[in-house]
Amino acid sequence: MKLIIAKSAGFCFGVQRAMEMALDAAKRYPLPLYTLGPLIHNPQAVEYLEGLGIKVKEQMEDISRGTVILRSHGVSFKDLEKAKKKGIKIIDATCPIVKRAHFFAKFLRRHGYALLIVGDADHPEVEAIRSYHDREVEVVETPETLKRLGPWKKVGIIAQTTQSFDLFKEVVAASLSRAKEVRVFNTICDATTVRQKEAVEIAKKVECMIVAGGYNSGNTQRLAGICREKQPRTYHIEIAQELNPKWLVKKGRVGLTAGASTPSWIIKEVEREIKRIKGRED
Amino acid sequence: MKLIIAKSAGFCFGVQRAMEMALDAAKRYPLPLYTLGPLIHNPQAVEYLEGLGIKVKEQMEDISRGTVILRSHGVSFKDLEKAKKKGIKIIDATCPIVKRAHFFAKFLRRHGYALLIVGDADHPEVEAIRSYHDREVEVVETPETLKRLGPWKKVGIIAQTTQSFDLFKEVVAASLSRAKEVRVFNTICDATTVRQKEAVEIAKKVECMIVAGGYNSGNTQRLAGICREKQPRTYHIEIAQELNPKWLVKKGRVGLTAGASTPSWIIKEVEREIKRIKGRED
Repeated sequence: MKLIIAKSAGFCFGVQRAMEMALDAAKRYPLPLYTLGPLIHNPQAVEYLEGLGIKVKEQMEDISRGTVILRSHGVSFKDLEKAKKKGIKIIDATCPIVKRAHFFAKFLRRHGYALLIVGDADHPEVEAIRSYHDREVEVVETPETLKRLGPWKKVGIIAQTTQSFDLFKEVVAASLSRAKEVRVFNTICDATTVRQKEAVEIAKKVECMIVAGGYNSGNTQRLAGICREKQPRTYHIEIAQELNPKWLVKKGRVGLTAGASTPSWIIKEVEREIKRIKGRED
Repeated sequence: MKLIIAKSAGFCFGVQRAMEMALDAAKRYPLPLYTLGPLIHNPQAVEYLEGLGIKVKEQMEDISRGTVILRSHGVSFKDLEKAKKKGIKIIDATCPIVKRAHFFAKFLRRHGYALLIVGDADHPEVEAIRSYHDREVEVVETPETLKRLGPWKKVGIIAQTTQSFDLFKEVVAASLSRAKEVRVFNTICDATTVRQKEAVEIAKKVECMIVAGGYNSGNTQRLAGICREKQPRTYHIEIAQELNPKWLVKKGRVGLTAGASTPSWIIKEVEREIKRIKGRED
């Protein structure tokens, strides 16, 4: 059996940075220590942080004192204001690439553009970006959404940083029918694009494709979706134990990639488990 | 037989305006009276103007005195300078919608954008727009062209006013891989889009499609190309006499449209000829 593992699998720069800031905070600051929502979209990594005393709270209302780590996806305007008002210490682990998307959203609104965010309406990154703008902001999940929006004189477009580049292109193309001026800042993280491209190349070559990462991770879900288009035998798992040996029967070439929030130890475990199953088969 | 004639067939606003300005000039100004290149891309209309004493000169070098009518496609920077220097009277019949494309090209260059013009490199409108900019301007004829251009930090995109909207969308989408910021002004003339959409709708319904207009007319060529995708039995003719009765044999539904530079008298003649042929058949 040949196992092809994506070089780009696992933690991206922003997630790595957030994890390091959280580990550092656990050493330096007294409890209570919180994150608002899971620090990253990976239950196993979050569990590990909980072991260090970092608790997940879903709402700022549930935090009254101590230190809060703002997660890589960023935080909404209201939650930030609440934390400041309560005098809670803030460690801002928002990914700098996400901050860049915030910057361009503000830039476009300040210059009078209606704003479109290509992304998932209920993703915390998108919710946070949107929260800083009270009007003329729309989240676009599909090019079809545009038919019921606009028309505008001028429209600005950004993307959720982990969005599919193809969807972004489709929405931009469709927007040209709805506005005379379209101004686009490509805020998709290069790491996302590189990861998606590499995954597609591997999916084309193999007979079975494994994508590891949190079920709550949007970028992992999209990664699996993109791979599935090339190789229908694509399986999204969260941990090694979920690997079904049947998937690998008589598969000469197997591919493995992982989302931006999947820890390297999980990827290693999946790799070992694939090799163990295939070894038994031989 | 049912003959469906496009409501949008024939002279657009800019061509109508240029023709009226030329006819007016023929009454009011003494000879010599010139146009630099054909006033519009229709040999029959140009022949009519020649009958009124308006001569076509291909180069400004060939004009030394009198009055020159600048055609609907606009004129290059150098030619305009030459005409001014020689003291030739200028009647500017450049289409206002083409002027708008010039304006946005200048706006984008002034704000530091590399400029892409989606169009045919040797079309006089595109040549004219391009001539006002000495660097960082590229004409893009296909999305593939982009692969050898850029990358840019910021790129601005406009289109030849009679360009295909689908090509424009494809180029804009492709440019997103080549620049972090893409700023687009949709300079395609609405009349072009309306004409193309209506033509496609008719082409879908008929068994034979006739597109009338100058062989040298880019927008007529594109109109025929777009119709041919829906109805392979699409024929581009310049005048009624070119209609081949064989094309119409046993065709219950026939469609007719015409380019932006096709005079109404030619459309009428084609209509009469189709009816004559089909009448003879019955």
